[in-house]
Amino acid sequence: SKTYRICTLPGDGIGPEIIAEGKKVLQAVGKRAGVTFTCTDALIGGAAIDATGSPLPDATLEAARASDAVLLSSVGGPKWDSTDPNAPRPEQGLLGIRKGLGLYTNLRPVKIYDALAGASTLRPEVIKGVDLVIVRELTGGLYFGKRERFYDEEGAGSNGGRGQRAYDTCEYREYEVERIARKAFQAARKRRNKVTSVDKRNVLETSRLWREVVHRVHDEEFPEIELEDLLVDNTAMQLINRPADFDVVVTENMFGDILSDEAAQITGSLGMLASASLGDGVSLFEPSAGSAPDIAGQGIANPLAQILSVAMMLTYAFGMDEQAAWVQDGVERVLDDGWRTRDIADGSTPADHVLGTSAMGDKVVEYL
Amino acid sequence: SKTYRICTLPGDGIGPEIIAEGKKVLQAVGKRAGVTFTCTDALIGGAAIDATGSPLPDATLEAARASDAVLLSSVGGPKWDSTDPNAPRPEQGLLGIRKGLGLYTNLRPVKIYDALAGASTLRPEVIKGVDLVIVRELTGGLYFGKRERFYDEEGAGSNGGRGQRAYDTCEYREYEVERIARKAFQAARKRRNKVTSVDKRNVLETSRLWREVVHRVHDEEFPEIELEDLLVDNTAMQLINRPADFDVVVTENMFGDILSDEAAQITGSLGMLASASLGDGVSLFEPSAGSAPDIAGQGIANPLAQILSVAMMLTYAFGMDEQAAWVQDGVERVLDDGWRTRDIADGSTPADHVLGTSAMGDKVVEYL
Ligand SMILES: CC(C)[C@H](C(=O)O)[C@@H](O)C(=O)O
Ligand SMILES: CC(C)[C@H](C(=O)O)[C@@H](O)C(=O)O
Repeated sequence: SKTYRICTLPGDGIGPEIIAEGKKVLQAVGKRAGVTFTCTDALIGGAAIDATGSPLPDATLEAARASDAVLLSSVGGPKWDSTDPNAPRPEQGLLGIRKGLGLYTNLRPVKIYDALAGASTLRPEVIKGVDLVIVRELTGGLYFGKRERFYDEEGAGSNGGRGQRAYDTCEYREYEVERIARKAFQAARKRRNKVTSVDKRNVLETSRLWREVVHRVHDEEFPEIELEDLLVDNTAMQLINRPADFDVVVTENMFGDILSDEAAQITGSLGMLASASLGDGVSLFEPSAGSAPDIAGQGIANPLAQILSVAMMLTYAFGMDEQAAWVQDGVERVLDDGWRTRDIADGSTPADHVLGTSAMGDKVVEYL
Repeated sequence: SKTYRICTLPGDGIGPEIIAEGKKVLQAVGKRAGVTFTCTDALIGGAAIDATGSPLPDATLEAARASDAVLLSSVGGPKWDSTDPNAPRPEQGLLGIRKGLGLYTNLRPVKIYDALAGASTLRPEVIKGVDLVIVRELTGGLYFGKRERFYDEEGAGSNGGRGQRAYDTCEYREYEVERIARKAFQAARKRRNKVTSVDKRNVLETSRLWREVVHRVHDEEFPEIELEDLLVDNTAMQLINRPADFDVVVTENMFGDILSDEAAQITGSLGMLASASLGDGVSLFEPSAGSAPDIAGQGIANPLAQILSVAMMLTYAFGMDEQAAWVQDGVERVLDDGWRTRDIADGSTPADHVLGTSAMGDKVVEYL
């Protein structure tokens, strides 16, 4: 039987608890599909800093490279917040593995689960039918450009004396825009055939390059897809005003960071959203929400986003669309039957339907 | 009697129509307060390009500098959208006057009018009591840093050959952060004594500088103000999740562009929001919404944001707080009595309460 090797990165906070449920579901899928999944843990983030001094030890990157897919949980926590600018930070592990594996495409699907529509702060008629995906460029732009800090007279302005100055560089190369545009149009082909490309063309040179290249790729390779341009500030408005109108939204790294979190919040159930980071080699899958250190170790964290990230892995890493649908449908039916973790429960949830992390994992396996 | 000289910039689209109502209200206030306001029009944006070839003719900048305050409407429209990257663009007029007058502080108040709460796509209980102000840094960051485009092998990546590359620079100097932080804390003192400073410290060097300097200014000069830090992606979420919790939100130029539009959209009535751009000399006041070329010339545009920008001018440029309150209260009572322009009318508005642009201006004057 076929064997896939997964590099699992439990990370920090609730990470180890929820990734256990992801593995549980994966094993159940494997059993039913007659496929073997082997999971091997490696260190990342704060846990890696504690053990090795580095948020991304070489051994982790090597293990990830040698695997068939990476399942990440989440990193970070107050323990590693430091005022020392040179102290290693857990997020560097995340940025490092994105760059190290060349994961230039981040897919963040945002979907309303009917059973959870009440959790949104938006009116039900506005969020009804929301089903979009943010395609975020993940290895370019302000995140990876040159940055520096120094002291000189300019930094102080007319105050005299010396002051600090800092800069970051937002850089894009034509091929970087080309390949992410292609991913967006390909995603649209499997969905509703519409792409919204987001930029700030009226100000930024990188945005003008972005818009030109996205249109060239469209005209040459995907003329049948509907393409619209939207300025980033207007997009921030329209995501609130008419979220159901969006299908695929493609944008550069920093805009994507902001807009994907905004879009996620529209659902009101962050604990349900997963993301895939893809390149031309090994891919990585993770929940969208953070490491929630405040509830770590209590067995109450919501594992569903992690479980849904397993579904994304089945689709994108192994082409197992049918098995991915088992997981997605399983989660949907668990919700439809009223099972909740604490974060997605509300006044109408009977106490005996509020499950802990592990019980929720078991429930999904039961419904598979 | 005292005389104030206003440089008025009608701009494009609905600009000339709505600025006429702003002037109307201003004259009514002057009459009642025993103050003379003289308004002199100058060219900006597309109108200036058509007349002179430049979106910000020297004469306009000189007139603005020589005035006591600038009242701007809005610029831009499809007429000046060009695929030629060297063609002058209306927004350059806006960016040029901000830089030319040194308008480094942009105040964008976001407030729910009870009478219009139904226009929001957010649930009524979530937007109830929203009353925040975004303090956006307006002359630094990605907007005014060095940018370039060129061709080289790197631009093409492994495709071989040559490709394009572009970059923009996000730069901040210590004194630039200092002065905007001070404006934010001063604003908080007149409000609910709380400042949220927004950055992306886990990635950007400019954000790390930002956070340090904001805290230094806080600790040295405003220790009594409550200060919290929030990452920009998290802020994009919390503005939807708990908008009523925010008081003053201070951030750099690009984040401020995105977040202020997001916050504006939360109200659902963009046509009601005005902004003030302040520096150490002449200040500028304008509605937050755009030039709406699609409805220009029809006499149906909503002039209330322009009228409210006049109220901001009375406060910030002339220290006429009492007279500003006349205008604000007037607008509020007009709404409470059910008067609407088309954009803020709904099914429950009787047809004879839907007013055109000029009739709405008259109505506010009547209620002053
Ligand atoms: C932790 C941080 C560096 C990261 C990012 O900004 O990309 C996170 O916000 C995300 O969106 O995955
Ligand atoms: C027109 C554009 C350059 C401008 C900006 O980005 O600052 C506008 O969006 C605004 O917010 O005033």
